[in-house]
Amino acid sequence: MKYCSQCGESVEQRIPEGDNRERHVCPACGTIHYHNPRVIAGCLPVYGDRVLLCRRAIEPRLGYWTLPAGFMENGESTEDAARRETREEACTEVDIVSLYTLTSIIHVNQVQLIYLAQMPEKRFGPSEESLEVRLFREDEIPWDNLAFETIRQVLTLYFQDRKHQQFPLRHMEIDRNAFHSARVHL
Amino acid sequence: MKYCSQCGESVEQRIPEGDNRERHVCPACGTIHYHNPRVIAGCLPVYGDRVLLCRRAIEPRLGYWTLPAGFMENGESTEDAARRETREEACTEVDIVSLYTLTSIIHVNQVQLIYLAQMPEKRFGPSEESLEVRLFREDEIPWDNLAFETIRQVLTLYFQDRKHQQFPLRHMEIDRNAFHSARVHL
Repeated sequence: MKYCSQCGESVEQRIPEGDNRERHVCPACGTIHYHNPRVIAGCLPVYGDRVLLCRRAIEPRLGYWTLPAGFMENGESTEDAARRETREEACTEVDIVSLYTLTSIIHVNQVQLIYLAQMPEKRFGPSEESLEVRLFREDEIPWDNLAFETIRQVLTLYFQDRKHQQFPLRHMEIDRNAFHSARVHL
Repeated sequence: MKYCSQCGESVEQRIPEGDNRERHVCPACGTIHYHNPRVIAGCLPVYGDRVLLCRRAIEPRLGYWTLPAGFMENGESTEDAARRETREEACTEVDIVSLYTLTSIIHVNQVQLIYLAQMPEKRFGPSEESLEVRLFREDEIPWDNLAFETIRQVLTLYFQDRKHQQFPLRHMEIDRNAFHSARVHL
């Protein structure tokens, strides 16, 4: 941020009174501009013994496989966002079962929420955001061609948990390439 | 937003190519400015049969009681944020037990995460953000002087769940003054 979005003047970086962090502050109109993490919401869509993955049509990681997920928008709930992203990226409607993973992706200022979801129908397809959309059995997952480490982690946990048919919330943190924890919250 | 934070020119509102929502777009440098919900993280600190509340020293709802919670910052996890807010507002250190509520507060573009937390020591106090910090038994909760509807809801659920000593994740949505659901995700 270089300019104040309220008045157009150049902003400066300083710690506002009563705060303890540097912020972008406008010396002209006094506006303090906060920058906060964004929420990524998505689904792990399940159809029978298969899960739905999308091959990305956009950067970053164009051509790699991922779960349908994206930035939550203003004016919607986290579940709305997860369903919308699944609709936009995989052209499918899902029934959300439960929140399955919450991952703080610290180095990129994101909080990723992945919902476990059931596909009532085997109806899906590519979109402007996905070159290809496919159902995969566990032994078909393209582990070497997944778009993101967080997605690899979610899928790994899912196939472990599926053996016991219990899907407790998995609470994780990732900072650069290291997962700090995969703590289970019950 | 009136001016581009990258180049200082006036922004316009239009739907960018490949998008389906109006965004603030800079006609000069082409930057698309996205606005997304922010995460509020906080704790429900428990000490024995009592819970810790803070009386707000800042607007909005100055003078009313609330749980320690606030905006998640860049560069931290959701749990870090919950612990930091608890430290800043109640001058206490807590051990997080589990994520207890996730509430989409749709009309103000917020996602609120409240963690159930244990206080290892009976050590707490007021701060720049809290006029007063106190432990309350269930029958002492100042129900008529709580700062926010979401906090009333979290406390209500907590005292219900405490009877069974089970605290599953509670997944909620609020839009203006109406709670849409208090679905339990296990």
